[in-house]
This record gives sequence, structure tokens and C-alpha cells, in this order.
Amino acid sequence: MQHMRGRATPVALDAMGGDHAPDEIVAGAVQAVRERDVPVVLVGQPRLIHQALAAHDAVAEIPVVRAEEALAMDEGALASLRRPRSSIAVACHLVRRGDAAAVVSAGSTAGVVATGRLRLRGLPGVIRPAITIPLPTRPHPTVLLDAGANADVKPEMLVQFAHLGVAYAETALGLRRPRVGLLTIGSEAEKGSKLVKRAHELLVGTPGIEFTGNIEGHELLTGKVDVIVTDGFTGNVALKTMEGSVRYAFGQLRETINESRVAKIGGMLQRARLRDLAERLDPEAQGGAVLLGLNGTVVIAHGSSRARGVAAACELAAHLAAQGIVARISDRITSANRSHRRR
Amino acid sequence: MQHMRGRATPVALDAMGGDHAPDEIVAGAVQAVRERDVPVVLVGQPRLIHQALAAHDAVAEIPVVRAEEALAMDEGALASLRRPRSSIAVACHLVRRGDAAAVVSAGSTAGVVATGRLRLRGLPGVIRPAITIPLPTRPHPTVLLDAGANADVKPEMLVQFAHLGVAYAETALGLRRPRVGLLTIGSEAEKGSKLVKRAHELLVGTPGIEFTGNIEGHELLTGKVDVIVTDGFTGNVALKTMEGSVRYAFGQLRETINESRVAKIGGMLQRARLRDLAERLDPEAQGGAVLLGLNGTVVIAHGSSRARGVAAACELAAHLAAQGIVARISDRITSANRSHRRR
Repeated sequence: MQHMRGRATPVALDAMGGDHAPDEIVAGAVQAVRERDVPVVLVGQPRLIHQALAAHDAVAEIPVVRAEEALAMDEGALASLRRPRSSIAVACHLVRRGDAAAVVSAGSTAGVVATGRLRLRGLPGVIRPAITIPLPTRPHPTVLLDAGANADVKPEMLVQFAHLGVAYAETALGLRRPRVGLLTIGSEAEKGSKLVKRAHELLVGTPGIEFTGNIEGHELLTGKVDVIVTDGFTGNVALKTMEGSVRYAFGQLRETINESRVAKIGGMLQRARLRDLAERLDPEAQGGAVLLGLNGTVVIAHGSSRARGVAAACELAAHLAAQGIVARISDRITSANRSHRRR
Repeated sequence: MQHMRGRATPVALDAMGGDHAPDEIVAGAVQAVRERDVPVVLVGQPRLIHQALAAHDAVAEIPVVRAEEALAMDEGALASLRRPRSSIAVACHLVRRGDAAAVVSAGSTAGVVATGRLRLRGLPGVIRPAITIPLPTRPHPTVLLDAGANADVKPEMLVQFAHLGVAYAETALGLRRPRVGLLTIGSEAEKGSKLVKRAHELLVGTPGIEFTGNIEGHELLTGKVDVIVTDGFTGNVALKTMEGSVRYAFGQLRETINESRVAKIGGMLQRARLRDLAERLDPEAQGGAVLLGLNGTVVIAHGSSRARGVAAACELAAHLAAQGIVARISDRITSANRSHRRR
């Protein structure tokens, strides 16, 4: 590694992952370093990265670690096995070696999850890592997990996801005793699938989890709880349904405005305000998804991330690492498993 | 039964189910009869119903069938077993006897589903009935099922739901060869849960089903397919997530408008237009959910339905019955099961 700076351990940023890699990724690294004071090391093809850094006059500012291969955006879990020297695999390796504090990638979610599991390994006692997503609720985000890493789960995994989510809410959001809800199809305990009913029973008696009961789909964006636990299939469907529904609502609104000449004037007056709102709803502003439960922190930025989103993801990764989220999760899972054995 | 009119067989309307029963239900019956030319028989406590009819001067216009009991809105499946003379059970009985063409209720979904299954019975060969919901897409609604009747399903049930949904799309929407999509978490066939992957394999080879592949959450409201098949857990979560997300988007918008004095003028200009839009998104306007796969048609109106929604549900029920949806489903399932045995 060339030019690695002293002080804080840097975030390892996968320069080759994402729809706008490497240019927007490198631009995001520059923003993270210059504007957010987050040290970054870029991982990927040095020639391409140096070209992009030169455009920002930042070649001397940000170190580069070579990785000749990269996962394409349409490559999934299997490709990660075939490419042990992919940029994301090398970034994970830096974390294992202690040369980086966390990994950030805007690459394909399936590829990042598979590579992370293979290269960083799960924390002892964690059955499966989960993808954690912040939802744009007020006054602070509600955390949803699993957002897609595990399509088929067992009730015990949902309980572990609660621990992962609580550790995230404490660390990233600074909450004390975060309230946990279970996503299902009715507010009563006996409603839902067999999976959810059993998870409900387990969560009721779990020490260290402030379980407040069932949450329904229409409550996801109300801020009723701080952490929402679900399987990766339901979580991913719900998340994409939210995206699609908000887009639909604004599309309908735009159509309605354009249909009326009088309303068009009103529409013009509001355009600036709507831009503000779009900004607030923008998932990039939130920093991205986090893969929790591994022996290292992995932030998965949106595939379409531009510089700002990449910089936010780096800041989130650095913050989670500095707050020791991996150790917190490890403590929670170890003591949960110990108390479980004792029962 | 008193005053039953000749001509078309009436719709049996549960006068006691719904948040605004019996007054809004009875008002809906009056609208259905007077404005939509749909014959209705009201089922419930005669004294209450006659009082409500009197307020519309309609006592002589709409027949009443006595049912002394009713399911409360918070009562679920078990209550339907305990109340064989509930208004919804009696309404089902009228359909079995041939005295009514279909059932309409705004009662608790769980209660209506359980009562319908018990009193109307499933069609031969149908494993489980499913709740079908129209989504507000253009130019015509997309049909989603199962929206909540079956939290735990098998792949074969998802194939049957496709048949039910196609029969609905042909009957209620007049579509020919409706396109069918499977709700999952990736567009490739190998993505998703074990359940969905197996259902995908089965649907690819199903005669009579125009299966176009996987659908993701963000595509639910795009009109990409005509029928969307899913299990009742995922379907219910997705549906409620849509409701909540659209409400969230408009709430954020309202807040944004109110924050700005200039924008406030624009907001005033648009208020009338927004009301139009809300109308179009209103699930009541669509007529409600339909429980398909039973030996009779059951339309489940939204619990908060007012007169207009109840009248729309009655019209939908009458239309489905007149188009012979039960026979169409029966034909489809019979021939599907026959060709399945042949393979």
C-alpha cells in the first residue's frame, strides 16, 4: 500500500463497484477526505483510479490498493467465489488484516454480501448476517432488517436480527433502549405466518430487546418503533414497494399538476420545495445499507450512487467502526447465546 | 324473506359488518339499488335496518333477511365458528340456496374469510381461497392476490392463485390473456425464497397462464403485468406498505407546502386537484377485495367503507356473478388438475 497515512484507520472503498464506477466513486472518496474528514483507501485498478484522482488533483491525497479484478453489477454470489482478487474481496482483506476499519462498496448487493461472508466470515454465534436499511422517518430513521440477504430464515434468526438492529440503532443513531417491532400482517400476537408467530414468542422473552410487538406494512414509515425485524424476502419486497409507491405518488401528483393550467402556476411555485423534499427522501443521503453480523463492517451504497452518496457511505462506515459496532454485536450475541444455553 | 323482487338475483349485503354499520351500509344499499341498478337484499337485525332504510324512505324498496347475531370488527376466524347465525353466515347461506348471487361484507376480513370458507365451501380442486385486490394502475387495475387469506402457502397454491387471478382479470376487467407476474426479490428466475423459486418453475410450464416472470416491489404500481401472484403474508405486507407509503408521500408534501409562504399560495391552487387525485387512489372507488376460490363470490369491502364504497362493492359483486366467475374458476382448476394428472 502506498502513501497510507497515519492517524485513523481508513475506510476501504471499492472503486470498481457501482453504476458510475470508478469516476463517481473516486469523486466520493475525495469528498469524504476533504469535506468529511474521513480517511479513505481506494481499492481497484490503479491506472483507472489514478486517472480519476488526477481530475480532482488528489493523487497524493488518497492511497490506492491494487485489485486487478472486479465484480460486474449483474454478477451475483457465485462470481465472488470465482474472483478471490476482486476489488471487494481485497477491500475485505484489508479489514481482516487491520489495515482498514470498514468496507464500502456500491457493487451488486448479492456480490458484496457473498464476498463479505466469504472473506470477513461471520461473527462467532451469528447464524447469518443481515442487511440493515435506514427508513426516512422523523425525528430519526427507523432501522429495517433484513432487507434482502436471507430469503429463507428461521425464527431464531429473526431474534438475532433484533440484536443486530438494536446494536446499529445504539451505535449509528445514538438511541438508548431502541424499541423493536416485528413486521407481520396483524397487530395481534396470533396473526401472521408460522415463522413470525414463533419469532414473536421468542422475542417476548428475549433479554436486552425492548420488544413492543407487531408492526404492519402501513406503519413502516410512522416511526412507531426504532428497529423493524423481518426476513430478507419480506423486507426486500417492502423496501422496494416503498420506493415504488412514493415514486408513484409523486408521479400522479405531477400528472395532476400538469393537467390543470391554474394548478401549473402553483406547481411552479412549489418546484423548489419539492426538490428539498426529494432530497430528504433520497436513500443516498442516508449513507446506504449495512451488512451486519460479520467480523467487520460492510456498507453497501446504492448501485446508482454518485459522489455525495459514496461520501456519506464512507462517513457512516467510519462512524460505525469508530463506535465499535462489531464488538457490540459480538457482546450481544455471545451473552444471548449464553443465557439461551442456561435456560 | 319479505318483499324479494323478481328479475335479477340480488346481492346479499351484510348490514352489520363495517366500522359504520348499519347506517352507511344501508345507505350504500340504497345507492346501489337507485343509482347503479343493482338489486340488494340486506342481512342483519331487521329493526336497525328498517330504521336506517326509513331515513332514506326506502323500506319498501329493499328486502331484509333476519340475522340476529353479528361478528364484531375485532373478531377473527374462531368467532365465525361460534356464530352460525351471524349476518355474514346468513348471507353466505342465501348464496348457497340460490337466493342471492353473491355476498358483500365490510366486516373483519378474518371473520369474512373464515365464514365464507365454512359456509360456502371451497370449489372442488381449489386448495385454498385467496383475497384478490385491484391496484390503482392505468389504464386498468393490476390484480394482486393473495392479499392476506393465507399466511403460509405451498408452491402449488401460488399456481392456483394465478388461475384465480386470471379468471378475475378476464371477468372483472375484460382482459384477454392477462399477463401474470410472480412477486419476488429479483428479476432472475433463481432469485427469491425456496417457495418462489419452485412456484416460478411450475408457472413457466402451466397451460392457460401467460406467465411473464418475476415482479419486484417497485413494479407493483407500474402496470407491467395484469395479475401479480404472491403468498398472503407478502401480499398483505406489500399492500399495507403501499397504503402507508402513499400516505407518507402526501404527508411530507403537505408539510413541505405549509413550510413555505410562497408555496402556500401554490398549495391553495392545487387543493382541488389533489382532491381529485385522492379520489382516484381511494380503494373504495375500486369496489373492494374479492375472496376467490369458493363456491360463491364474496366481496370484502374496506372496514371503513361509507355508502359509496358499499355501493361500488355491490356493483362489483353483481358484475362478477353475472359474468359467471365461479364457473370460470371451476373450469380452469378442473382442467389444470386434469392436465396435471396426465403429466
